[in-house]
Amino acid sequence: MEVNRLSALTPPMGWNSWDCYGASVTEEEVLGNAEYMANHLKKYGWEYIVVDIQWYEPTANSSAYNPFAPLCMDEYGRLLPATNRFPSAKNGAGFKPLSDAIHDLGLKFGIHIMRGIPRQAVYENSPVLGSTKTAREIAHTNSICPWNTDMYGVDPTKEGAQSYYNSLFELYAQWGVDFVKVDDIAASRLYDTHLEEIKMIQRAIQACGRPMVLSLSPGPAPIKYAHHFKTNANMWRITDDFWDDWSLLYQMFERCEVWEKHIGTGHWPDCDMLPLGHIGIRSVDGPGGDRWTRFTKDEQLTMMNLWAICRSPLMFGGELRDNDEWTLSLLTNEGILSINQKSVLNRFVYREEDKVAWAANGRNGEAYVALFNLHDQQKTLQFRLDMVGIMETVQLFNVWDRSFLQSLAPSESFQIELKPHQSMMLKLSPDR
Amino acid sequence: MEVNRLSALTPPMGWNSWDCYGASVTEEEVLGNAEYMANHLKKYGWEYIVVDIQWYEPTANSSAYNPFAPLCMDEYGRLLPATNRFPSAKNGAGFKPLSDAIHDLGLKFGIHIMRGIPRQAVYENSPVLGSTKTAREIAHTNSICPWNTDMYGVDPTKEGAQSYYNSLFELYAQWGVDFVKVDDIAASRLYDTHLEEIKMIQRAIQACGRPMVLSLSPGPAPIKYAHHFKTNANMWRITDDFWDDWSLLYQMFERCEVWEKHIGTGHWPDCDMLPLGHIGIRSVDGPGGDRWTRFTKDEQLTMMNLWAICRSPLMFGGELRDNDEWTLSLLTNEGILSINQKSVLNRFVYREEDKVAWAANGRNGEAYVALFNLHDQQKTLQFRLDMVGIMETVQLFNVWDRSFLQSLAPSESFQIELKPHQSMMLKLSPDR
Amino acid sequence: MEVNRLSALTPPMGWNSWDCYGASVTEEEVLGNAEYMANHLKKYGWEYIVVDIQWYEPTANSSAYNPFAPLCMDEYGRLLPATNRFPSAKNGAGFKPLSDAIHDLGLKFGIHIMRGIPRQAVYENSPVLGSTKTAREIAHTNSICPWNTDMYGVDPTKEGAQSYYNSLFELYAQWGVDFVKVDDIAASRLYDTHLEEIKMIQRAIQACGRPMVLSLSPGPAPIKYAHHFKTNANMWRITDDFWDDWSLLYQMFERCEVWEKHIGTGHWPDCDMLPLGHIGIRSVDGPGGDRWTRFTKDEQLTMMNLWAICRSPLMFGGELRDNDEWTLSLLTNEGILSINQKSVLNRFVYREEDKVAWAANGRNGEAYVALFNLHDQQKTLQFRLDMVGIMETVQLFNVWDRSFLQSLAPSESFQIELKPHQSMMLKLSPDR
Amino acid sequence: MEVNRLSALTPPMGWNSWDCYGASVTEEEVLGNAEYMANHLKKYGWEYIVVDIQWYEPTANSSAYNPFAPLCMDEYGRLLPATNRFPSAKNGAGFKPLSDAIHDLGLKFGIHIMRGIPRQAVYENSPVLGSTKTAREIAHTNSICPWNTDMYGVDPTKEGAQSYYNSLFELYAQWGVDFVKVDDIAASRLYDTHLEEIKMIQRAIQACGRPMVLSLSPGPAPIKYAHHFKTNANMWRITDDFWDDWSLLYQMFERCEVWEKHIGTGHWPDCDMLPLGHIGIRSVDGPGGDRWTRFTKDEQLTMMNLWAICRSPLMFGGELRDNDEWTLSLLTNEGILSINQKSVLNRFVYREEDKVAWAANGRNGEAYVALFNLHDQQKTLQFRLDMVGIMETVQLFNVWDRSFLQSLAPSESFQIELKPHQSMMLKLSPDR
Repeated sequence: MEVNRLSALTPPMGWNSWDCYGASVTEEEVLGNAEYMANHLKKYGWEYIVVDIQWYEPTANSSAYNPFAPLCMDEYGRLLPATNRFPSAKNGAGFKPLSDAIHDLGLKFGIHIMRGIPRQAVYENSPVLGSTKTAREIAHTNSICPWNTDMYGVDPTKEGAQSYYNSLFELYAQWGVDFVKVDDIAASRLYDTHLEEIKMIQRAIQACGRPMVLSLSPGPAPIKYAHHFKTNANMWRITDDFWDDWSLLYQMFERCEVWEKHIGTGHWPDCDMLPLGHIGIRSVDGPGGDRWTRFTKDEQLTMMNLWAICRSPLMFGGELRDNDEWTLSLLTNEGILSINQKSVLNRFVYREEDKVAWAANGRNGEAYVALFNLHDQQKTLQFRLDMVGIMETVQLFNVWDRSFLQSLAPSESFQIELKPHQSMMLKLSPDR
Repeated sequence: MEVNRLSALTPPMGWNSWDCYGASVTEEEVLGNAEYMANHLKKYGWEYIVVDIQWYEPTANSSAYNPFAPLCMDEYGRLLPATNRFPSAKNGAGFKPLSDAIHDLGLKFGIHIMRGIPRQAVYENSPVLGSTKTAREIAHTNSICPWNTDMYGVDPTKEGAQSYYNSLFELYAQWGVDFVKVDDIAASRLYDTHLEEIKMIQRAIQACGRPMVLSLSPGPAPIKYAHHFKTNANMWRITDDFWDDWSLLYQMFERCEVWEKHIGTGHWPDCDMLPLGHIGIRSVDGPGGDRWTRFTKDEQLTMMNLWAICRSPLMFGGELRDNDEWTLSLLTNEGILSINQKSVLNRFVYREEDKVAWAANGRNGEAYVALFNLHDQQKTLQFRLDMVGIMETVQLFNVWDRSFLQSLAPSESFQIELKPHQSMMLKLSPDR
Repeated sequence: MEVNRLSALTPPMGWNSWDCYGASVTEEEVLGNAEYMANHLKKYGWEYIVVDIQWYEPTANSSAYNPFAPLCMDEYGRLLPATNRFPSAKNGAGFKPLSDAIHDLGLKFGIHIMRGIPRQAVYENSPVLGSTKTAREIAHTNSICPWNTDMYGVDPTKEGAQSYYNSLFELYAQWGVDFVKVDDIAASRLYDTHLEEIKMIQRAIQACGRPMVLSLSPGPAPIKYAHHFKTNANMWRITDDFWDDWSLLYQMFERCEVWEKHIGTGHWPDCDMLPLGHIGIRSVDGPGGDRWTRFTKDEQLTMMNLWAICRSPLMFGGELRDNDEWTLSLLTNEGILSINQKSVLNRFVYREEDKVAWAANGRNGEAYVALFNLHDQQKTLQFRLDMVGIMETVQLFNVWDRSFLQSLAPSESFQIELKPHQSMMLKLSPDR
Repeated sequence: MEVNRLSALTPPMGWNSWDCYGASVTEEEVLGNAEYMANHLKKYGWEYIVVDIQWYEPTANSSAYNPFAPLCMDEYGRLLPATNRFPSAKNGAGFKPLSDAIHDLGLKFGIHIMRGIPRQAVYENSPVLGSTKTAREIAHTNSICPWNTDMYGVDPTKEGAQSYYNSLFELYAQWGVDFVKVDDIAASRLYDTHLEEIKMIQRAIQACGRPMVLSLSPGPAPIKYAHHFKTNANMWRITDDFWDDWSLLYQMFERCEVWEKHIGTGHWPDCDMLPLGHIGIRSVDGPGGDRWTRFTKDEQLTMMNLWAICRSPLMFGGELRDNDEWTLSLLTNEGILSINQKSVLNRFVYREEDKVAWAANGRNGEAYVALFNLHDQQKTLQFRLDMVGIMETVQLFNVWDRSFLQSLAPSESFQIELKPHQSMMLKLSPDR
């Protein structure tokens, strides 16, 4: 068995509720962002609307978790949307009405789930649908999430374990889910990566009959399991939660370097959401507070350039409806999106102290070079064509504004002064 | 605050139900062993009768744990003896009647508890006695036992946490408990040692007004916390569960060497129970099965010699009523028990490959040397008097049978052939 | 200062005396191999003839070193060719006559030297040419070669140190040397890499006015000094001495993977000589003895494929005049040599257990994929075009025999059965 | 074979020229210190007069070494005293006249040597006395001293190697040498400990027929070779060179703790010389300069207490003739010297942060406790009798001034305020 690579032929692009609403997003907010996406972003390739964690908890009201809080659950131990937050889910409709509405906008619908089975189902000893077993018999006796008290892991050695996951994804398929972000699974300070549960979930997706993108969290996913991630999932977090803090962006360069060989069609190392625009509205995580992104404009461009040249999934984290013109421009630059969606041979070129270069090839003979100054001082960055495997004279363009910069011959070195945290994305077009 | 050292002036000696009955001992079995102890062992210093884990679980029937099993609990989240196993506990009497019976035999009574608060209490949100808080408010959101599903840890930063532990020990004091073995606390593969919960428990003992020996499990307790253990507990396990398997006994020599500097009045590194005689009656742990100890006689003597010279607590693990003469003789050798209970300057002397020597001083000018051959071949062991700090001629005796061996002068070397796994305990009496 | 990259625009190709004659090659043997190269290999790009270690020692007669042997040396502590082995060096002519003869054949001349100054010069306290200092004043008091007793290191902090190296390279320039292999410098079990002496030598090359390729030994050069090697030398050994032993070839794959990012114009990670054909004639090193290479034909092809796709320098180690047709064919395959000399974007693609893939791009839109089966069993290897960044249908050819294999579309996977240690070099030509 | 333990039944006490004269001491200075010792210290047990390094180098004039300096040597590659510094050595007399003079004072004579054979002998290819081999044949091809250029190591695998060492010790026996300090042997940053050369030297001592104390330098000797040191030498440095610097004294406590189990008759872990009184007269080592010891009086006492309770050899480093009354008092305290020379069961008791306790037993029922405050603040130190294995009431005395302090019962804790770096040596006398 192997993941259906057709589920994410290119890096998924979408919106996720976490960065602005934490665990507490409501149906109205989800729909509002979906409408914005349909109107302003869909034509650039943006398509997923993802409801993040705790949609089954009526009392969720921020990004903080309520210990041992009662959850909405059906008789088979499957969590259901809290109807005080998602009114359309009433009368057992689940996420079907919301999903329909999003599909009607020409978009796709995603949800977040936690690995495992609710502890509540274990106390109530709920029956497992499609099995003679009960929650108590399949719950793992030593597998919890270190940061959330809702679930026990499911023990893959127990009869009924696969049945439980199958019962979940059958429900999600009925709802019309297109994308599932599974949490507490790709990395765990307590237990290492949950390799077997990843497999059970991919099997459940294939059994349910509806294509779904499988996204794994949290990070950093261990590089030693690269092959496992590639063959069982479409994207996985290579980083802890990412926020609008330079030190986190700085560290991402090292993580991308580590994962460089594993970027490819259908399997995407994930740099996490883009904390841009208006974020933190009901979140107490990260640098905290209802705020405009703390990244400077240079840092925002640096982030976009890195996510583009590494082909990371692009999941916008801000309240889309509050975007200003600058923020919108970051999401709609066709040159940058083309690199993210279509480039090949994405590769780390060098790192000398905090000067970093990446490169990629386009589909029509052009190449791309991204130069990053991660220093806190202005620096001169350079590259020669032989570093990126080009042996003929090229024309250099700035990708963001399409401006022509200069001609560059194989014997020459291109040099550019970059301000602290500034970067540059170059297009190299051969003289043909 | 510091542990009451008067609670264990010498290494505790007693019986514990684990090695023969696992999690399932009954009142009748406890009393039967107590009577045997009163009749045969009390005069040699044996005094504690300890009921090990799961006495609150009606369904316990071996050493295996039943995942998520319902437990007997009072309205305040405090566990109570299962009356199907401990009939005298009926009508809310708890362990008071059993404790009284043991005290009437001139012995002392001990129980095992798990660190924390029952998950069942968290689900029911039980009030905490002596506090306005509830179980859900004091349970740690990320602290479970890796091998038992009964409890959550208690979060020491929460108001009500100390009250909960106080409420437990008030109950135990009412019951007449003299010895408490607290488990899942001294070592944890998931979370490191639970230092703060150790402190809360010692505080609760001091608050309850009744002296109790505090014993910590499981092991290996990390040596880096030696000072914490010494100042907060009377004994702590320096080893994982110990069974009748040579490799475990072999490894114990290294552990004792590590802990050598921390042997002293009131604080005893604990080598765990003595798996002698008839063991494994309802246990599926360790090498497994209802059996006579698998240690050879030489290995049994080697174990007794090591526990003696290191002053480890002596807790017999077998069914006392089935003891044969040999086994009884191991528990009643006055010379060996005197080393365990009274010697001083207990010290590691050397290890050359698998030849090991320890020494101790007696109270009246005599000294003791234990020689151990841990090899699988016969070996010659030796020592000179200067190695143990003696500069005058001594008379050498074999401690086990009191036989005279030879005279030894400072310029001479004592040599002895020892069979594989064999050892020798020597008494060195100066010529005065 | 930076290395003159024009000295080795492409990976150097040549012959070195070590693998067949150890430390003992003679002028006649050097000239004989040069003539063979001029006649059979020059047209394929082979050009360097390199005299390896101990040419200054009259008593050298194998690959073993004679401890503390007297050396031929001039009054300034500079080593001279032993005239019993190099008759044309008589009357102070040094290597000039031999060099002239090689240049007359249209080839280039290289020599091996050891880092440092002869211990003999220190004992005699020779003056340093162009300086007021003496050997005793510039010799490092704690820097020797772990495997050869001829030299002390030169202390870069001492006045006169650079003068000494300058005096050496002035002499080599007079002789007409084109290539210098400096030993005991790139790795040392005793002292780490001698970074400062590398710099002194590169400075001396630039000061002498004659372009010379700088090659550093032994290996494995530490990856942490990659930047230092790239900016100061043209090639450096990434491996210990390489011989005709599968385990060494097996390990080379890991070393190439480590150095992959540092392959580029003018700076070449060096996999060491090719121990092919007739080797070990007067060598007692490696697997030992006068012999035909012990590599199987599949292993020889695997070696050539790896050296090609990684663009390692190609230095033939065997007695050229004894080449058979097969061996000659390995050195004259235009497709393989073109990959070694001209390909770009040389990159490691994957390693799954012992199945390895590398890729490179050609200059005209074609790409190359090398598949290696390092297992001791037959295995199926595969690749998809997206792994090598190609998104269009290509025609696949076997590089070695130019045979057409099949067409491959982006959605397809290419599969091939490879025998143990076998490999395949594919050319991918787009359908344009 | 095993070291002759009778050579150092108690820790050697003496004077060494290094701390005041570095590599440059003269005969007059040696004799002057010997006379002082005979007059003031001999009756307290001081007996060795040791000439440290480079006595064979005419140009030595400080503690710095002259690279590649010519040495005085006989025809067999054996170093001889430089007669400009040791006039009595003229006419081939060697150290015999000086040794005789020291013996006439009732003292013993020691010399320092470097491991190995002079490089000068290797260049001259000197014959090895008592062998058909030459220096070039026995010199190790890869074994030098990292900090001194005089010698090559001797290769123990070579025929003639043992003969060379035998020829050295025959000469030393003729000279009347009683003590040999061998350097560059117990620890080496380049090569690890030279275990085989240690054995060759001990064999040479036994072959020469004259008892000699074997002292090994430099340190820190690796603990993993403890058994090797004990069975082949009488003392070995557990520390790098020790000087009058608090940080070095502070670190010594950890080193002594590591070596505690290896203190015993005939084999003494060596804390190095006592840098007291007038030192650094012609030394440029350590904190540097001609000076009075920089240790405060409290630190001097702390050093003496540690060296005493650990039974380190006591080698005075200052110019004895310049001693003041205080310094002399440190060397003549009978209580302290008795602990150093006669105590047993020397043992580390505890370290809590920078509060340290050691203990030892006397020969007549008394015990000793040393309390050290290594903090930079005043601290309260304490101990209970059970920590040192005493179970009866004792009388406490201050060893240095013999003053009575108090009575101490087993249930009590002794407490004392100690200033920064201060210590206390207590004698515990039972009430018998």
